[in-house]
Amino acid sequence: MWLLMTKQQPMIEANNPSLKSWIHVKADSDFPIQNLPFGVFKKGDDSPKVASIIGDQVINLHVLLQEGFFEGIELPLDVFDQNSLNPFITTGKKMTNAVRGRLSELLRLENQELQTNNHLKEKVFIPVSEVEMLLPVKVGDYTDFYSSEQHAFNVGSMFRDPENALLPNWKHMPVGYHGRACSIVVSGTDILRPKGQTKSKEQTSPVFGPTKRLDFELEMAFIVGKSTTLGESVGTDQAEEFIFGFTLFNDWSARDIQTWEYVPLGPFLAKNFASSMSPWVVTIEAMEPFRVSGPKQEPEVLEYLSYSGDAHFDVKLEVYIEPEGEKKTKITSSNYRNVYWNIRQQLAHHTVNGCNINVGDLYASGTISGKDSNSFGSMLELSWNGTRALSLEGESQRLFVEDGDTVTVRGFGEREGVRIGFGEVTNKILKAK
Amino acid sequence: MWLLMTKQQPMIEANNPSLKSWIHVKADSDFPIQNLPFGVFKKGDDSPKVASIIGDQVINLHVLLQEGFFEGIELPLDVFDQNSLNPFITTGKKMTNAVRGRLSELLRLENQELQTNNHLKEKVFIPVSEVEMLLPVKVGDYTDFYSSEQHAFNVGSMFRDPENALLPNWKHMPVGYHGRACSIVVSGTDILRPKGQTKSKEQTSPVFGPTKRLDFELEMAFIVGKSTTLGESVGTDQAEEFIFGFTLFNDWSARDIQTWEYVPLGPFLAKNFASSMSPWVVTIEAMEPFRVSGPKQEPEVLEYLSYSGDAHFDVKLEVYIEPEGEKKTKITSSNYRNVYWNIRQQLAHHTVNGCNINVGDLYASGTISGKDSNSFGSMLELSWNGTRALSLEGESQRLFVEDGDTVTVRGFGEREGVRIGFGEVTNKILKAK
Repeated sequence: MWLLMTKQQPMIEANNPSLKSWIHVKADSDFPIQNLPFGVFKKGDDSPKVASIIGDQVINLHVLLQEGFFEGIELPLDVFDQNSLNPFITTGKKMTNAVRGRLSELLRLENQELQTNNHLKEKVFIPVSEVEMLLPVKVGDYTDFYSSEQHAFNVGSMFRDPENALLPNWKHMPVGYHGRACSIVVSGTDILRPKGQTKSKEQTSPVFGPTKRLDFELEMAFIVGKSTTLGESVGTDQAEEFIFGFTLFNDWSARDIQTWEYVPLGPFLAKNFASSMSPWVVTIEAMEPFRVSGPKQEPEVLEYLSYSGDAHFDVKLEVYIEPEGEKKTKITSSNYRNVYWNIRQQLAHHTVNGCNINVGDLYASGTISGKDSNSFGSMLELSWNGTRALSLEGESQRLFVEDGDTVTVRGFGEREGVRIGFGEVTNKILKAK
Repeated sequence: MWLLMTKQQPMIEANNPSLKSWIHVKADSDFPIQNLPFGVFKKGDDSPKVASIIGDQVINLHVLLQEGFFEGIELPLDVFDQNSLNPFITTGKKMTNAVRGRLSELLRLENQELQTNNHLKEKVFIPVSEVEMLLPVKVGDYTDFYSSEQHAFNVGSMFRDPENALLPNWKHMPVGYHGRACSIVVSGTDILRPKGQTKSKEQTSPVFGPTKRLDFELEMAFIVGKSTTLGESVGTDQAEEFIFGFTLFNDWSARDIQTWEYVPLGPFLAKNFASSMSPWVVTIEAMEPFRVSGPKQEPEVLEYLSYSGDAHFDVKLEVYIEPEGEKKTKITSSNYRNVYWNIRQQLAHHTVNGCNINVGDLYASGTISGKDSNSFGSMLELSWNGTRALSLEGESQRLFVEDGDTVTVRGFGEREGVRIGFGEVTNKILKAK
């Protein structure tokens, strides 16, 4: 069944669920031979290198290129000797797909080229525990959408009116806003509790101090793979040609700062202190098996937002909280398919006015909440604006995220026994300075 | 009097109003020897180079560096052989001030080093009409503030309530939002009228088409000169150490798109189709003579926003409209001092939550409007939401900006007969595609 869903020969091969590798991969690994995402690692004092991963083995692509394993694929010789994926992504889908296809070939059980070369294997494969994963892309511009209906409904119900929870524009366009690109950090980075202005209804003037309502936002993000020039628009039917792949994303938020600052120009300091992303970019080609149809959109969207085919993805999403010295608790289970507006519509909307896009740009989905209260994508919703405490394993309860908490987002698609995972984005919260 | 206002010896020298150059500079030039701003130019097929300007002569700094004229200033040899000022700015204020000081010295009437070297002069000086000026900085992140009280009052009166025109947070913080960095273009770039969704009160559902309410926003912007790391805050008393200089800025806006899209997350497609800036970055050191005190801020601001001294600048600002084939009309005269929140407060607010900043970041003031209706900084205000047509020289009238119009923003400080100007940011509007 997978075979029919993909168009290009190399992808069919790389995605085949019956493929086995000579590298051992645990059954619950996010990174079987069918995934082969891309990232950037650093080992000790060596300079950063572009890599893929299989099981728990990071694959140094620079060594493979140097050793001639990508012969026939015309790559710049330093394309993997970089601190970001941007130069590699810039070579285009034909190249990046060819690399993924060739990697898949090299790693197959029946392939001997690398398997029997013990000397080289030592240079190519490194246990992921021995490296530092870096931010995979240099993000030029970052946009955050607001594309989950349940999330928009929850927020509207809480702060406005449950009868008119969605604002008038919400079902007509994928609402979004520009975020801070330079404060996007990779999984593993500690997050300092931000300080700022807040004012409760009871207070007559604002006060300054650490946020009391620190929150995560469970999101997915796509990375742009092809640039446009100013004035150019990308239609829904071409949009996926401009998308390289996906990561998990956590749009950290300070709810009390947000409430006070956001009218009329939107979120600013409540968000820009940090956002975090997972280190491996899963290609859109590896996501093929997980395509699903989206919700019926009523009222009908304007023509530039109409699309055909399946452009939503069935990706299970989970968030865990682990207080310092306590057990980890899964606090929500959502799914990427719980978005109303899909990636084609997001990109078509973003560029319909001629706004240009660049390789490495990051477009996040907005908080992804499901229908059930245990599938909401933020503490704001899970604790219903701080009114219902969430019980964790052990003694602790939570209304928002506390100092010392480690928050972990995980995500994966699963089908025919093969899991295409995103790894995780995990960050510990440190006390405000 | 100027002499007392500056701290460092090279600046005192470079700013001295009695300085004369052996290069002829017209009396009304923006670029006398006291200015010496920095920019990036391209001549024919040569690669871009960093430059300064005096009168109408672009000064190729790469040639001066190669020829040893900056001996004693330890600059990387390729620092001017670049397509942006970022590497130069990154060398730090000590270096950039030393370069400006040395340039001032070389250009003085009494200095013979360059004046008598006819062969070299031909390589160093190029008439500005013979070069293409490029975007001076690679903008990492771009923030737009909303710091003019009269502008916020006008907008609030128009769309909300004249009795409560300012929102509750406005006098407590420099409200701002993140904009699109990659669609910032340099003066001279044509701007395509953007298309998008709009919905008037009379319409039951949105329609798609070219904006009918295209507008400019008269702004100033500062460019960051020193980076911080995530988690670091910059106080009002240190803020100017992190500021390299200023440019003129036009935050193009599509008012009908904005009205429909901006709730609740702020302006998005109404702004990100293009913003434009002037090509010369005037150093904050050259602006010293124009410091003035700001308005009394009541209610008193929180401690992290308090400041002492003069941090506003007396810079005259003008906007002109020139319909195709018609005369140019000055349609507004404002002043940069018409901002409530100054640059120290803006930067302190932006970083108080630990948000990092980087060399090349651009922070725009927001529309700068004066008290009088002929000093408003946008068509929205000048035509009072499209209700009062503005008469231009000749026959034309304007409610908003029309296709074929050229909009020009100019700005300069003037004191003791010396004008420190910003040049202009000028763009022509093209019909939607």
